[in-house]
Amino acid sequence: MVRKEQADSVNISKISPQEIINLDHGDPTMFEPYWRKMSEKCTLVISGSQFLSYFSDSKNVFLEPELENEIKRLHRVVGNASVDDYHVVVGTGSTQLLQATLYALCSPDDDSNPVNVVSAVPYYSCYPELTNFLRSGLYQWRGDARTYNEGGPYIEFVNSPNNPDGTMREATVKKGQGKLVHDLAYYWPQYTPITSCVGYDTMLFTFSKCTGHAGSRIGWALVKDEDVAKKMTQFVGINTIGVSKESQIRAAKILGHVSESCLNPGPDNFFETGQILMAERWEKVRQVVAQSGMFSLPHYPKQHCLFTGKFSTQAHPAFAWMKCNKEDIEDCEKFLRGQKILTRNGRRFGCDPRYVRVSLVGKEEEFKLFLERLLAIQGTSNGINHM
Amino acid sequence: MVRKEQADSVNISKISPQEIINLDHGDPTMFEPYWRKMSEKCTLVISGSQFLSYFSDSKNVFLEPELENEIKRLHRVVGNASVDDYHVVVGTGSTQLLQATLYALCSPDDDSNPVNVVSAVPYYSCYPELTNFLRSGLYQWRGDARTYNEGGPYIEFVNSPNNPDGTMREATVKKGQGKLVHDLAYYWPQYTPITSCVGYDTMLFTFSKCTGHAGSRIGWALVKDEDVAKKMTQFVGINTIGVSKESQIRAAKILGHVSESCLNPGPDNFFETGQILMAERWEKVRQVVAQSGMFSLPHYPKQHCLFTGKFSTQAHPAFAWMKCNKEDIEDCEKFLRGQKILTRNGRRFGCDPRYVRVSLVGKEEEFKLFLERLLAIQGTSNGINHM
Repeated sequence: MVRKEQADSVNISKISPQEIINLDHGDPTMFEPYWRKMSEKCTLVISGSQFLSYFSDSKNVFLEPELENEIKRLHRVVGNASVDDYHVVVGTGSTQLLQATLYALCSPDDDSNPVNVVSAVPYYSCYPELTNFLRSGLYQWRGDARTYNEGGPYIEFVNSPNNPDGTMREATVKKGQGKLVHDLAYYWPQYTPITSCVGYDTMLFTFSKCTGHAGSRIGWALVKDEDVAKKMTQFVGINTIGVSKESQIRAAKILGHVSESCLNPGPDNFFETGQILMAERWEKVRQVVAQSGMFSLPHYPKQHCLFTGKFSTQAHPAFAWMKCNKEDIEDCEKFLRGQKILTRNGRRFGCDPRYVRVSLVGKEEEFKLFLERLLAIQGTSNGINHM
Repeated sequence: MVRKEQADSVNISKISPQEIINLDHGDPTMFEPYWRKMSEKCTLVISGSQFLSYFSDSKNVFLEPELENEIKRLHRVVGNASVDDYHVVVGTGSTQLLQATLYALCSPDDDSNPVNVVSAVPYYSCYPELTNFLRSGLYQWRGDARTYNEGGPYIEFVNSPNNPDGTMREATVKKGQGKLVHDLAYYWPQYTPITSCVGYDTMLFTFSKCTGHAGSRIGWALVKDEDVAKKMTQFVGINTIGVSKESQIRAAKILGHVSESCLNPGPDNFFETGQILMAERWEKVRQVVAQSGMFSLPHYPKQHCLFTGKFSTQAHPAFAWMKCNKEDIEDCEKFLRGQKILTRNGRRFGCDPRYVRVSLVGKEEEFKLFLERLLAIQGTSNGINHM
């Protein structure tokens, strides 16, 4: 481990001017300095004889009881979601749980047609792919929930705050036979004001976006219906026979630290620190974008955050959903790629390619370079305009 | 962690006479005493700031380079599979990789019929389920490879040594358009003599069966074709966006210990200890079964093991594939369940229900109770016969 620790403790990456900066993925490495500071408190020791069994206990099957406790505790501390009378299902990231909900909410036993799966545009770019990649006969992607007008059963993914555009969302289709999956990956105080303690039927969260530990691949679902929870666990059983116990125990430890850190204000408070960092990044991005005149960004209302108690909290989403307003640039992702900035094309979210999604949760160095390169475009672009 | 460590260091489970013993799953907890002895050597320390990113490095995407190195080193030490010029793909257990191979070996881009998936009876009971559970349009389960006689492309799972019956296997169908997946989960010295260093196109292994660390959910594939390896990684990306890094680093550490332990004979040598334990269990099972006269077990030839250098090594598989020879017992699993022994029904393996699969890799206490209860049946059964 020494080598790894050393690599962790110094900032070894140096991006050259020729190198592309990758802001396509939402790789949440921005919280690394915080976690380095907390490193000792959150250190986990695993002996060679732990975690031999597939199972955690006879009742929970794959879920480690420590993780269940810390998940419930954190939701109670933050007040973002109800946990009483909910079943917790653990997954290898919330990505696996999205598939588990599809499996659980369809009826694999009958021979009916595939259930339609929808989400309102702009929808999270992975929804179509994870729904369709195995050409399942149980479910199929049907695109934009706003224009969906078919009869019969359907499943709607409600992503709130929404990836890519950071807006708070409710269900769109609202028909009798629909089932809702609330993907609440970003419903944490660093990204958005906590405006209510939600209690939907099926709610998904992920360790990756909550604390930034994406490499651990831990997600969880809060599920009201016991049978749905059981079927989701069945999916996880068939797909991967459970979820890494090392990761589960580590997530329990780190979520426990986050809950405790919320007791006191200051730089050790994880969400407070996260909120300050996100606000700073958004302020800088908005400044540069305003200077350029080429792009626009969404605006978010000021709201009362139940967690901080502050009345005028603005959302600072993990992504900038940026629109290019120059008429001659039809594909913003392609244009930015030419400037060595890799972003995700609006098309991937069911949208116009004038939009791109830019990750704002990467390393500080990448973020700074993004701002520099955006400013440089402005220079070039103004130059062109003046010619 | 203290609580967990304490639970680990004492044998807290005490099975009551009324309790069912579960030998249905192959939960490999029998190696726990060895790992407890090695606990300190194999202790892993993970700091709070490690593993924030989804990615390991730009080339391997999800595979930790340390794990890749230790996997290749162990195969070189054991001599069971070629690693030179192979691509290593990491998965959340080999279960995920079985699905990844199906995805990679079909052609998701064309609109052709689902590819048929087969394996020779008795086949591993999870193959049908993991092939069919999402009703994929890419592939479908077609059952026994021995009776398979259709044209067109197909995929054959070749499980060697085979779960449930412990036999060494080659491909069965042998047609031009077939693709083979070699599931070599049990091709390790504690279970079977290593008779050759195999070099098939796609070979699957799992940490669970190699060392007994099933809770870590780490599997790996050795893949000859780069495009197949890439597609498998793509599957892992869509399905779970990678594999727990905590588990990967722990697997690297433990596999490294196993490689080093092979340098010297004695009780610290993992495979030597494993081989002795498995041989002892088999000797006891064969004794009890011989006494009963009710059941029969497969016999395995004595072979030259390249790893130990011994010429008359017998297989000691992880499961006893037991047949009930009493005419009035048509369903052996049901019969044994009545005796509070939970096993897996032969039907699940495409076989006669007179067969059951019994896990021999569980805890010592369970194994002893299994022998006691099997002996008690003999008594009851003889009693009935004499009436």
